[in-house]
Amino acid sequence: MKIKVGILGYGNLGRGVELAVKNSKDLETVGVFSRRDPKSVKTCGASVYNIDEILSHKDNIDVLILCGGSATDLPEQTPEFVRNFNVVDSFDTHAKIPEHFVNVDKLAKENKKVGIIAVGWDPGMFSLNRLFGESVLENGKTYTFWGKGVSQGHSDAIRRIKGVIDARQYTVPIDTALQSVRNGENPELSTRAKHLRECYVVVEDGADKASIEREIKTMPNYFADYDTSVNFIDLETLKREHGGIPHGGFVLRSGVSGENGETKHIIEYSLKLDSNPEFTASVLVAYARAAYRLAKKGESGAYSVFDIAPALISPKTPEELRAEIL
Amino acid sequence: MKIKVGILGYGNLGRGVELAVKNSKDLETVGVFSRRDPKSVKTCGASVYNIDEILSHKDNIDVLILCGGSATDLPEQTPEFVRNFNVVDSFDTHAKIPEHFVNVDKLAKENKKVGIIAVGWDPGMFSLNRLFGESVLENGKTYTFWGKGVSQGHSDAIRRIKGVIDARQYTVPIDTALQSVRNGENPELSTRAKHLRECYVVVEDGADKASIEREIKTMPNYFADYDTSVNFIDLETLKREHGGIPHGGFVLRSGVSGENGETKHIIEYSLKLDSNPEFTASVLVAYARAAYRLAKKGESGAYSVFDIAPALISPKTPEELRAEIL
Repeated sequence: MKIKVGILGYGNLGRGVELAVKNSKDLETVGVFSRRDPKSVKTCGASVYNIDEILSHKDNIDVLILCGGSATDLPEQTPEFVRNFNVVDSFDTHAKIPEHFVNVDKLAKENKKVGIIAVGWDPGMFSLNRLFGESVLENGKTYTFWGKGVSQGHSDAIRRIKGVIDARQYTVPIDTALQSVRNGENPELSTRAKHLRECYVVVEDGADKASIEREIKTMPNYFADYDTSVNFIDLETLKREHGGIPHGGFVLRSGVSGENGETKHIIEYSLKLDSNPEFTASVLVAYARAAYRLAKKGESGAYSVFDIAPALISPKTPEELRAEIL
Repeated sequence: MKIKVGILGYGNLGRGVELAVKNSKDLETVGVFSRRDPKSVKTCGASVYNIDEILSHKDNIDVLILCGGSATDLPEQTPEFVRNFNVVDSFDTHAKIPEHFVNVDKLAKENKKVGIIAVGWDPGMFSLNRLFGESVLENGKTYTFWGKGVSQGHSDAIRRIKGVIDARQYTVPIDTALQSVRNGENPELSTRAKHLRECYVVVEDGADKASIEREIKTMPNYFADYDTSVNFIDLETLKREHGGIPHGGFVLRSGVSGENGETKHIIEYSLKLDSNPEFTASVLVAYARAAYRLAKKGESGAYSVFDIAPALISPKTPEELRAEIL
């Protein structure tokens, strides 16, 4: 008996979830639920239903994976759908996670459902590595570097500039900074010292490139605090060379032990992902197992990756895990 | 109120635990318990008692950290002491973990205590990374490399050879193999292709070096399957240049996602440890928090790192963790 998954929303992330479920041994997709006309949604095989029909599928869905965005979808959807479903979301607005957790926790408990929030790689696998690092090496410093990868938010910010047709922005960790952390030098790193921003921009014929470049480089919050390079390319080159959505990064913990902190240790975790949404989807699907198992045990409430015993996300039994990989 | 820790056994690991507890905000050592004459045990400040007195300290110890060896101490001690204490051990004989777990689980449950076994970095943090890797990227391959670091077992094996005064053996991961995994090439790696063995050996005057070198290189299980280098040095050089107990290594998961496995992802976790026992001790101390918290909640039985929600090992509250590092 496979774990029955529903997918709410079908963008890059929803599609990634459908594929990750297909690639798993112990889960199956029972349906994709979309706000769009089901006939217009092309899946990789899963049936598509209108979101308004979802309650009629309630008894056939063990876990509903929410694949909407963090800005407007998930703050509404996760509390709403946890009334009737065990849910997993990838809410990634770090500053609003505590509030989102409280909202989901209340409704999950009232309705005896499980809601796992903020699942993915950051928040998610990176958060776990920050936790393990600082718990094991209490005296130390944690560093998170992102990239090299495409930042959707920054790409969108460039696209909003007048005269810009399309754009792709890469966040790039600065190698000398990373190396200094690896060497145990515990540097204090400014925003500018940690990451570069590389922009590939397609503009309209006759656009004022110098002015667009200046507008990008001085944009507050997005680019002003970074060394930013702007490269103007044509649309074909953008599609050919910058069509993917790679990402990744590094979490490092540099800490000491001993009588006087004389012994150094470095823990490093890194991801090199050819597709950000497909990897995020793979993490969501692994945590769908945990949602299912927690609900089976009669648990309810909100959870983050911090609250979930790792064995719960594995397709293997605890006995297999102990014999094979402990 | 700090969590009160007892330390059973005072070799390198016990000393590491004493120091890790000292470096923590929320734990304190109430005593070291040793089979040796307490007067002969020099701690970094903790009181020393004979192991026979331990039951009289029962009500003053929240968690007892077992710092004996896996060959003969822990298979006896963990089941014995879990009758009266919540315990954490670093049992690391991988093949015997399932049996050890069952033994500890039975007695822990009968006596309503918590026993966390196989805590450290391998088994321990490396096991967790194998689990996260294979659960998130179901289609893929896991690689574990150890080193560069001192293998005590291999160093001991060399010391048992006639004519050898002292020896230090380093396990060294082979860089080209590691690089091939990082490149997503999913190589099949023989034992010889993954690690080198470097030996530094001090011999008696007039010893037959050629014969000792041959004996090391052909030793079954320990060296015969590896490319091994043997370096003869004097005792002073050994003490000066090879006095530490560094270790570390790498766990990599190379996996794919997508419709036909066309998207590649690499997860890499690595440790660079100046002191193997001090780092293992730091992990034990973090999991002592979990033992304490699980016992407070009325849980009992055997646990491994797989069964423990990560938040339980942090000095921070769940609210702090969500606000600060999720």
